[in-house]
Amino acid sequence: MSTADDTSGEDGPWGEVTPEAARRLLVAAVDAFAERGYHATTTRDIAGRAGMSPAALYIHYKTKEELLHRISKIGHERALHVLEAEADRDGTAAERLAGAVRSFVRWHAERHTTARVVQYELGALGDEHRTEIVALRRRSDAVVRRIIGEGVRNGEFDVPDVAGTTLAVLSLCIDVARWFDAQGSRTPDEVGDLYADLVQRMVKVRADGSAGPR
Amino acid sequence: MSTADDTSGEDGPWGEVTPEAARRLLVAAVDAFAERGYHATTTRDIAGRAGMSPAALYIHYKTKEELLHRISKIGHERALHVLEAEADRDGTAAERLAGAVRSFVRWHAERHTTARVVQYELGALGDEHRTEIVALRRRSDAVVRRIIGEGVRNGEFDVPDVAGTTLAVLSLCIDVARWFDAQGSRTPDEVGDLYADLVQRMVKVRADGSAGPR
Repeated sequence: MSTADDTSGEDGPWGEVTPEAARRLLVAAVDAFAERGYHATTTRDIAGRAGMSPAALYIHYKTKEELLHRISKIGHERALHVLEAEADRDGTAAERLAGAVRSFVRWHAERHTTARVVQYELGALGDEHRTEIVALRRRSDAVVRRIIGEGVRNGEFDVPDVAGTTLAVLSLCIDVARWFDAQGSRTPDEVGDLYADLVQRMVKVRADGSAGPR
Repeated sequence: MSTADDTSGEDGPWGEVTPEAARRLLVAAVDAFAERGYHATTTRDIAGRAGMSPAALYIHYKTKEELLHRISKIGHERALHVLEAEADRDGTAAERLAGAVRSFVRWHAERHTTARVVQYELGALGDEHRTEIVALRRRSDAVVRRIIGEGVRNGEFDVPDVAGTTLAVLSLCIDVARWFDAQGSRTPDEVGDLYADLVQRMVKVRADGSAGPR
């Protein structure tokens, strides 16, 4: 019944959500929001998808918005974690940028149902929750901007507009969630490799991989 | 009352829709779908936004899906037209690719409310209508692929994966509709210029603009 990105088990993005009933409801909410949109979904729909009663849902979530907030928070935290892990590796700025793009793309391809909900329903969050999520998005932005900035400073990259290029790189990766089709011709890894190459071109990495003069 | 992308007048994207009442309903539908999603919007909501009765709506549109189809068809046709106009100009492949990206980005920035509905509610179209829209999307894809292919053949571009690069270029432009903020720090023209440069980098246009050997 619960199929959000086929990752409803403890190893999926919702593994931190306990007890199991709360996790099952979250997965059901992702599927329902993705299918009909947040505003067209009722807590009754979500409970039904999870094979539970509306009363059982209220034990875990007081409102529909609380479910969306939980989904959005975990989704953003996981995506940020993926970026930070690559940014903190050893290696040149070019290698770390390629790694960050590869992982961020893979996340948005594999978790495309979750990512769509997370990206398209931001407007439905309450003010306080939206502020919290915007702060997480700024942190993702800062990770990519930092890598690009380092590459510019050490001469690896030639980028006139670091903020704009950061925006474009993140946008390119995030939009994978919109068009990615698990039945399509490209795997998440293949899209990740393609995009890592395209982003290296956007920042004009030197062909020999060396750092040049500033 | 009607504010979809501030282009409700005859000069906007809906200028071809007549009579004026039918146009007014279309603009109201774009706003309602963008705000609450297709499934959470009723024809009564749309009629109300347009200052009309539900009965008056049914004179022009038999179903809510007919409204979405009309919006999606006009939106896709306009976006395709913008691409084709640039592709058919005189000039090098690099110049035409830059022009196409600039115009396509501008379209998605200026008409971001419409573009979001058009992009995110594809799944709500009936089978026949979806097939029609997918054909329009394939034509947009073909326009960009043709320019990139020409640039590769005449030595202007160095692109190992033309289909993948085409997908990425269109995705980058389309996603402008998601993040563009009319109150933000960049104008549609500025984003268009930035993205035209980034796409030229993606295809590795030679710095001197000349066509080289194959």
